Amino acid sequence: MRRVAVIGVGVTKFGLHDRTSAELFAEAAQDALTDAAIPATAIQALYYGNVVGGETEHQLHTGPQAASVLGIPSVPTTRFETACASSHAAFRHAVMEIAAGVSDVVLVGGAERVLNVSTAESTEYFAYASDAVWEQPLGLTFPGVFALIARAHMEKYGTTEAQMAAVAVKNHRHGALNPKAQFQKQITIDQVLRSAYVADPLKLFDCCPFSDGGAALVLASEEVARRHRKPVWVLGSAAASDWMLLGDKRDLSRVPATERAAAAAYRQSGLGPRDVDVVELHDCFTIAEIVATEGLGLFEPGAGGRAAEAGRTSLGGEIPVNPSGGLKAKGHPIGATGAAQIAEIVTQIRGEAGPRQVDGAKTGLTHTLGGNTATVLVSLFGRD
Amino acid sequence: MRRVAVIGVGVTKFGLHDRTSAELFAEAAQDALTDAAIPATAIQALYYGNVVGGETEHQLHTGPQAASVLGIPSVPTTRFETACASSHAAFRHAVMEIAAGVSDVVLVGGAERVLNVSTAESTEYFAYASDAVWEQPLGLTFPGVFALIARAHMEKYGTTEAQMAAVAVKNHRHGALNPKAQFQKQITIDQVLRSAYVADPLKLFDCCPFSDGGAALVLASEEVARRHRKPVWVLGSAAASDWMLLGDKRDLSRVPATERAAAAAYRQSGLGPRDVDVVELHDCFTIAEIVATEGLGLFEPGAGGRAAEAGRTSLGGEIPVNPSGGLKAKGHPIGATGAAQIAEIVTQIRGEAGPRQVDGAKTGLTHTLGGNTATVLVSLFGRD
Repeated sequence: MRRVAVIGVGVTKFGLHDRTSAELFAEAAQDALTDAAIPATAIQALYYGNVVGGETEHQLHTGPQAASVLGIPSVPTTRFETACASSHAAFRHAVMEIAAGVSDVVLVGGAERVLNVSTAESTEYFAYASDAVWEQPLGLTFPGVFALIARAHMEKYGTTEAQMAAVAVKNHRHGALNPKAQFQKQITIDQVLRSAYVADPLKLFDCCPFSDGGAALVLASEEVARRHRKPVWVLGSAAASDWMLLGDKRDLSRVPATERAAAAAYRQSGLGPRDVDVVELHDCFTIAEIVATEGLGLFEPGAGGRAAEAGRTSLGGEIPVNPSGGLKAKGHPIGATGAAQIAEIVTQIRGEAGPRQVDGAKTGLTHTLGGNTATVLVSLFGRD
Repeated sequence: MRRVAVIGVGVTKFGLHDRTSAELFAEAAQDALTDAAIPATAIQALYYGNVVGGETEHQLHTGPQAASVLGIPSVPTTRFETACASSHAAFRHAVMEIAAGVSDVVLVGGAERVLNVSTAESTEYFAYASDAVWEQPLGLTFPGVFALIARAHMEKYGTTEAQMAAVAVKNHRHGALNPKAQFQKQITIDQVLRSAYVADPLKLFDCCPFSDGGAALVLASEEVARRHRKPVWVLGSAAASDWMLLGDKRDLSRVPATERAAAAAYRQSGLGPRDVDVVELHDCFTIAEIVATEGLGLFEPGAGGRAAEAGRTSLGGEIPVNPSGGLKAKGHPIGATGAAQIAEIVTQIRGEAGPRQVDGAKTGLTHTLGGNTATVLVSLFGRD
């Protein structure tokens, strides 16, 4: 297989926008093309992630729409949907297109618009990623899913609400350093613990927000990437799945798909968790970050909560997690999230992350989760 | 790149079903696995096409759901959506996964359920593949899109309603030979011409039906395929796009994306239109078949209507088109259609198509169109 690099990244500000998802993507894509110093006409394929466009914008077939808005209407384009991991899936398939020798320069990204509908509606649409026959009729929405996971983790390992709150506080502290973040303000443990319960034990400040936004990446073959500044190499990229139904999973305190995808990505790259300098992972809820740090092998099972509380995952800590602010503070436009995480890791590895830079970051990892933990993608990145 | 073969195919009956799309896919997938003589546990990835699941079933994240229903919950899986071309897109990306050396055995397919909602609702949901800002508010639905295309073709080339009717009559004649077809009865030119106008000049019998159904394919690397009976090789697979908005297209009598995708697929395979023995193409409306036969180079621009009327595309004619009955008679469960077309061509190349067999078919082509002609995929297949 041919080597693949990221040579350009672009991300919109996340939060409330008065534009379509295609327009949000176009802004991010133009930034990525400028960053890569290539014209749109150099793009040979477009890999596009979008999740609830059918529901919130009455828009399917979003691949060619995004290509048209960018002025490159004839490029092959596909929309990918793996719930909240959609643009990470788009990225992984794009890597395969270049690895297979089909193309040399591919644009990858995604966008989502949900703040044009009510919170009740977006909560329902997000729940479409759960099973429509067995789970949705029970009223199971995502805060409920992760509340069940949190309870399982608390019972098995003694994880506390204060430890979960520490994740939110840390990610808000990081987000305050990110001009693209939806929330750029710090919060306190006390604020998190006193916020309203959404799904016991998860409170409002344990939950990431609904967000509009777009993100884009320019990928290139080694031959093309060598001509560009600071290529960041894809060292591994893997996907794994798990039972769709929560009731089919044996142990809610773990996410087997994270463990499988991480094992595969580490194997591809020849690296292990101790080789990783910086991580962007899927903290849709604070408990999700704790479970992910364990599944990725950064900490032993059950140790994630204490590690967060001890500051081991903070900027300046031993393994900074979510320097961008994560989904919690940066925001979570679900179709864009996977690509935005990769954009952050590329920026970190280039050493261009400004006040949120992880000193000496050479190797980074991104982790994106879809649905009731049924889809996970993990990718690893490094520089020459 | 490594060579890729289709080693198993499965298709449900198309039409009204009282099952979820995941269950429909599972039936097709089990048939494909049986056909390939491999267990589900041999599958290394699942590539899944589904279009309006969010709308008609309140179900997104359909990849892991399909994997769970099949009992292979941990395999990497992605849902692809390129409107009516979704499972052809899934197929093309799966070919790249094998070509890149990532996997050796991949399950590809798709399913759709729409007959659980009203015709008015499904017509609206299908229109989500048009632009939500500029086209849907005008009331532009797919019969309207193809009526505009038909008018353009009639004005430019003198194509007649009787020529379009000949496509419907031919595809119903073929469909009557296909036990999986939604409509297994012959119709007459007179019946087509006397049927009610849906969007002038298109009448009811110019339009394919709404359908439920599933289709699946087992793809394998050359090394694995050599151990199986009658592998059918993928000789080329290409995608192309076009402007999303109908108003941005210069000449509605042509589909540039078909011409571009066909040129690329022919180039990959080293073949041309005269080398093709049998074609399954996207006849969502009769005019779509006429325009596609021209775009694929089977006939000169403007000659497609006369060719259909003269029987040149019938079983027994010089280049049989849609021996399965096509979307018109076989049915069009949109997420399954691309995979079902490939299943038919594989069956034809194996010489196992029974009463609808194209004598001596060695090389076949499939063509699938998405949305307002903004997405087209073309693939070519052959035997040793």
